[in-house]
Amino acid sequence: MHDLKIAVVGAGLMGADHIIRIENRIVGASVSAVVEPDEGRAKAALAEAPNATWFPNIEAAIASGLVQAVLIATPGQFHEPVLTPAIAAGLPILCEKPLTPDAASSLKIVEAEISGGKQLIQVGFMRRFDAGYMQLRDLIASGAQGDLLGLHCAHRNPAVPDSYHNDMLVYDSIVHEIDVVRFLTDSPIRSVEIRQMKRNSLSPKGLMEPILALLETENGVLATVEMNVSVQFGYQVKTEAVFQKGIAEIGRSSGMNVFAEGSISTAEHMSFKTRFADAYDHQIQRWVKAVKGGKLDGPSAWDGYLAAAAVEAGLEALHTGNKVVASYAAKPSFYN
Amino acid sequence: MHDLKIAVVGAGLMGADHIIRIENRIVGASVSAVVEPDEGRAKAALAEAPNATWFPNIEAAIASGLVQAVLIATPGQFHEPVLTPAIAAGLPILCEKPLTPDAASSLKIVEAEISGGKQLIQVGFMRRFDAGYMQLRDLIASGAQGDLLGLHCAHRNPAVPDSYHNDMLVYDSIVHEIDVVRFLTDSPIRSVEIRQMKRNSLSPKGLMEPILALLETENGVLATVEMNVSVQFGYQVKTEAVFQKGIAEIGRSSGMNVFAEGSISTAEHMSFKTRFADAYDHQIQRWVKAVKGGKLDGPSAWDGYLAAAAVEAGLEALHTGNKVVASYAAKPSFYN
Amino acid sequence: MHDLKIAVVGAGLMGADHIIRIENRIVGASVSAVVEPDEGRAKAALAEAPNATWFPNIEAAIASGLVQAVLIATPGQFHEPVLTPAIAAGLPILCEKPLTPDAASSLKIVEAEISGGKQLIQVGFMRRFDAGYMQLRDLIASGAQGDLLGLHCAHRNPAVPDSYHNDMLVYDSIVHEIDVVRFLTDSPIRSVEIRQMKRNSLSPKGLMEPILALLETENGVLATVEMNVSVQFGYQVKTEAVFQKGIAEIGRSSGMNVFAEGSISTAEHMSFKTRFADAYDHQIQRWVKAVKGGKLDGPSAWDGYLAAAAVEAGLEALHTGNKVVASYAAKPSFYN
Amino acid sequence: MHDLKIAVVGAGLMGADHIIRIENRIVGASVSAVVEPDEGRAKAALAEAPNATWFPNIEAAIASGLVQAVLIATPGQFHEPVLTPAIAAGLPILCEKPLTPDAASSLKIVEAEISGGKQLIQVGFMRRFDAGYMQLRDLIASGAQGDLLGLHCAHRNPAVPDSYHNDMLVYDSIVHEIDVVRFLTDSPIRSVEIRQMKRNSLSPKGLMEPILALLETENGVLATVEMNVSVQFGYQVKTEAVFQKGIAEIGRSSGMNVFAEGSISTAEHMSFKTRFADAYDHQIQRWVKAVKGGKLDGPSAWDGYLAAAAVEAGLEALHTGNKVVASYAAKPSFYN
Repeated sequence: MHDLKIAVVGAGLMGADHIIRIENRIVGASVSAVVEPDEGRAKAALAEAPNATWFPNIEAAIASGLVQAVLIATPGQFHEPVLTPAIAAGLPILCEKPLTPDAASSLKIVEAEISGGKQLIQVGFMRRFDAGYMQLRDLIASGAQGDLLGLHCAHRNPAVPDSYHNDMLVYDSIVHEIDVVRFLTDSPIRSVEIRQMKRNSLSPKGLMEPILALLETENGVLATVEMNVSVQFGYQVKTEAVFQKGIAEIGRSSGMNVFAEGSISTAEHMSFKTRFADAYDHQIQRWVKAVKGGKLDGPSAWDGYLAAAAVEAGLEALHTGNKVVASYAAKPSFYN
Repeated sequence: MHDLKIAVVGAGLMGADHIIRIENRIVGASVSAVVEPDEGRAKAALAEAPNATWFPNIEAAIASGLVQAVLIATPGQFHEPVLTPAIAAGLPILCEKPLTPDAASSLKIVEAEISGGKQLIQVGFMRRFDAGYMQLRDLIASGAQGDLLGLHCAHRNPAVPDSYHNDMLVYDSIVHEIDVVRFLTDSPIRSVEIRQMKRNSLSPKGLMEPILALLETENGVLATVEMNVSVQFGYQVKTEAVFQKGIAEIGRSSGMNVFAEGSISTAEHMSFKTRFADAYDHQIQRWVKAVKGGKLDGPSAWDGYLAAAAVEAGLEALHTGNKVVASYAAKPSFYN
Repeated sequence: MHDLKIAVVGAGLMGADHIIRIENRIVGASVSAVVEPDEGRAKAALAEAPNATWFPNIEAAIASGLVQAVLIATPGQFHEPVLTPAIAAGLPILCEKPLTPDAASSLKIVEAEISGGKQLIQVGFMRRFDAGYMQLRDLIASGAQGDLLGLHCAHRNPAVPDSYHNDMLVYDSIVHEIDVVRFLTDSPIRSVEIRQMKRNSLSPKGLMEPILALLETENGVLATVEMNVSVQFGYQVKTEAVFQKGIAEIGRSSGMNVFAEGSISTAEHMSFKTRFADAYDHQIQRWVKAVKGGKLDGPSAWDGYLAAAAVEAGLEALHTGNKVVASYAAKPSFYN
Repeated sequence: MHDLKIAVVGAGLMGADHIIRIENRIVGASVSAVVEPDEGRAKAALAEAPNATWFPNIEAAIASGLVQAVLIATPGQFHEPVLTPAIAAGLPILCEKPLTPDAASSLKIVEAEISGGKQLIQVGFMRRFDAGYMQLRDLIASGAQGDLLGLHCAHRNPAVPDSYHNDMLVYDSIVHEIDVVRFLTDSPIRSVEIRQMKRNSLSPKGLMEPILALLETENGVLATVEMNVSVQFGYQVKTEAVFQKGIAEIGRSSGMNVFAEGSISTAEHMSFKTRFADAYDHQIQRWVKAVKGGKLDGPSAWDGYLAAAAVEAGLEALHTGNKVVASYAAKPSFYN
């Protein structure tokens, strides 16, 4: 079968990473177009994808006839103007999270997709493709440990750039837990509360963190999320699941054990790039197969909308200290 | 040096355990008196402590001249009538937690002790003598990982008897975390909140658990406590400490690793009796040494009072769903 | 770049697995030819590689012009008649281990390759592509723990088929450690000794195992190998490296930890297929890139010859109980 | 019951440690006599045991009537002159390993004990009282994993003093594994072989180590022992047991896990004093109880003799490179 021709939109950090991935590790796909207004970035990207053509905007790329699918890797605020023409052209889309920055615009995308009559959009919640989360979800689904009662999540970064600001704790970071808690529990987030832990004086100025989020799902599971972006020692994403009969835990580092200088130790990740390297690959590979098979099977635009709406509740919770109940539109039958 | 002559008050489950401990594993002490109104229990206890004398009440034991120190192992509501005469007699006391069931009566005991002019009471918060908690406290004190910012505690029982009722989640179980969070942070609990996790249908009727308690200390540390008394698989008490620069974790089971039937596994405890066996022994051994040395060094009556007052806040939090700020009397200089 | 057109020779268990791998997980390559005398097997294989053509023998495949590289996955005794024409045709070859069943025939292949003037052969010692072995080799090379002094290897299978016989302990199983000890120490095996452990009565009739092999390298490292093919509980390949200053260990299972029924456990592998799934993929992917880049970088025909010669020493050690010194031809400069 | 009055013979490093242990951690016993020719050492010891009396030799201590049991903590070559009068006096004895330095003198002690008609001697193989070894022995005895087929032991010291010389690898260090392999397998050592690993250039001059010992038991179990006394990183004693159906492993370090500076780590021991602290305590406590109960239940003089005879085989194996079969006297019915 011929390679799926993908237009990668945005050749920044994330987009460049996806281009290298598709060209080197993904079977059955290649980068046919790089959509990037900045010429320098575009040229750097083309060096990794020698058969791709540069387009300054998505419309031109679509018009060229070189594009069979679109991968959107620009910042969230620029997603909508790419999503709209790509949906209009009936192209399958993998859109990095967030779908759009807010619930209202996400709902508009959902409506556009519905009116086209076909599911075109997958949102880049790559944790759903991580081996640990998949194992845990299988365990939950198996019922072997009884009902799932609660989750304890920790999301820890060694440090963040100065551009990272306080609201990003919710919309850029906790958004991953918002989706994954829903994925694991198969239920939307009902409410969000946020509490301050003691502030880390090593955090960049203006950041009030680490914080503790409490996510309650509609089916009654309570998830705690430690969101911590200045913990220095490593990049760590862990989840402990509390069942009726036992506990399961994913995300502990593994690998070579070294006994040296009075201790036994295992290396921890320092970046999401290694922690989730396999998840990113699996995400794209499964998306390519799904597109070629004619039926998307990853997180949908509806999942993107639900996350956006829960993030809005989370931001209000962060700003007010209150328990905020998320408000959702009724689920269209289109997504059943 | 001669053995310290101890009167054990209460020969129920806990008291009987302490009698066996003192007679078999504690150096420099022996059980000289068993104070127990029930003759059957008393006789069973005397079988383990052949040189002890049976007394139906504490007053008689004190009057006999056979008692140099008192270990109180009756249920909490019966502590006060034992504490009062023992304090009056100037005897050193190790009192199982809680000191008394409520803050007001605990404060009365504190005042009685102060008016006697000498610290006589140690409260049985045995976790302070567990190797893990001691290691963690040393790490915090060392500053090697920077400031302590938060704690994640899990307190899990396989099951509880039918007599265990909902308030006991706070006053009988979380009370351990209330003391140990204070011990680790060196700061009293400022406020308590409690959230329901999804109810475990395997819990006894009337129990609404597991629950999540949020304990905030006066020095700004936020502790989460999963209190879970029907988790079937084992008895587990764990703490994860979040520092500025890293994380530390205590309470994972250790011991022989067995590779069998498709997995590698380590046994978990099934009861506090094995989980804290060493802590109980160390607690009593250190108390015996401290008594003989003339100066108690364990958790004081004031610690018992602080725990009782925080438990009251916790019960209100459990009943109302609110964040409840604990209210404490001013700390007497006597305890500095 | 166009896909590398690979002829897979042998469509049995191993060959079928490689066909699925190349078609689904390897970038830049596809199966263009299936060489297999058995029509049934060939047809089953073609179902997985719809663009491939069936050939009953390697000569026909080469003559067709459809083949740019050859992957040999037949049993070892059938390698030579495939290697010879493929070398003559100047095609790059990935040959499953062993190169050939004995040192003499392996040396003939080495000579044929040399006379062609170009390195064409990579031998399928896939452990060199396993993350653990690579990490360990890097640690050795770094010198961070001082010199490597010894290795303790365990190679454990849950069970083997009845066709597995005693000599296969050495030539089919320990051969992996023979290569990997050389890979880790960068030194050939100087001598082999073999000792019997207590026989496992669950072993198939005629198998005298587990056994313990002692491999001494020319640079003085002593490696112990527990070779155990009936250990029931799982498939496990572990190595513990002893350095001057410390120890390193690879191969412990990782993944989700489950706390259930009185223990904490992690799943173990049950087959080499999952244990080395990534290693097989990386081996083929790197080989494809190397072939396209014009320069092989994996284990060479010379490595295959050295392993064959050490296996001969191992078989004599197994049969006699003696310490047997391996005998090698001088290393041709071609392989420097 | 009154305290057992113990004479501690030898107030060097080991004896001083035992005196502190008995006085502070052992119930039902006290040090009544310190037998030590060196006055300075004796006085230092008496500071820890204020009720003890100093004697320059064992005969005087026995004659004083102050001694009910004898603990011998002098170097091995001085054991016989203490054992003989203590046996003659019918006193129970705990004798640090080795019983005596060679098999012939050990057999004489065995004969002296037999002619007295009562088991008086326990040998200080304290590993038999370590929780890990006890768990492993229970697992073997249970048969849950089928027959025991082999053992892999590692005995690692960070460093040794300059006085430690090559033969001590066998008679001072491997002697522990000689006893414990026998304890676990319930079978004497049939033969010993020794191989050199690559020499650690950090070892003191004259030491040719690490070495690998192969111990074969009379019931067919093969044990490998890595004996390593300059491994720098820590003190580690591990055993991996190979069964028909699985594997068990003891001796991995446990305790607080610290996530810091890019890794997760657990502290390792640096000395036998912490690694076997509990084992030493349990050994003495059980011996005291056994003495008071009138019946020793620890490793006997016969065990001491068997170890001495296996050590002789081990020394010959070390010196010759041969496999040396141990030679034992027939077991007297006295020890059944």
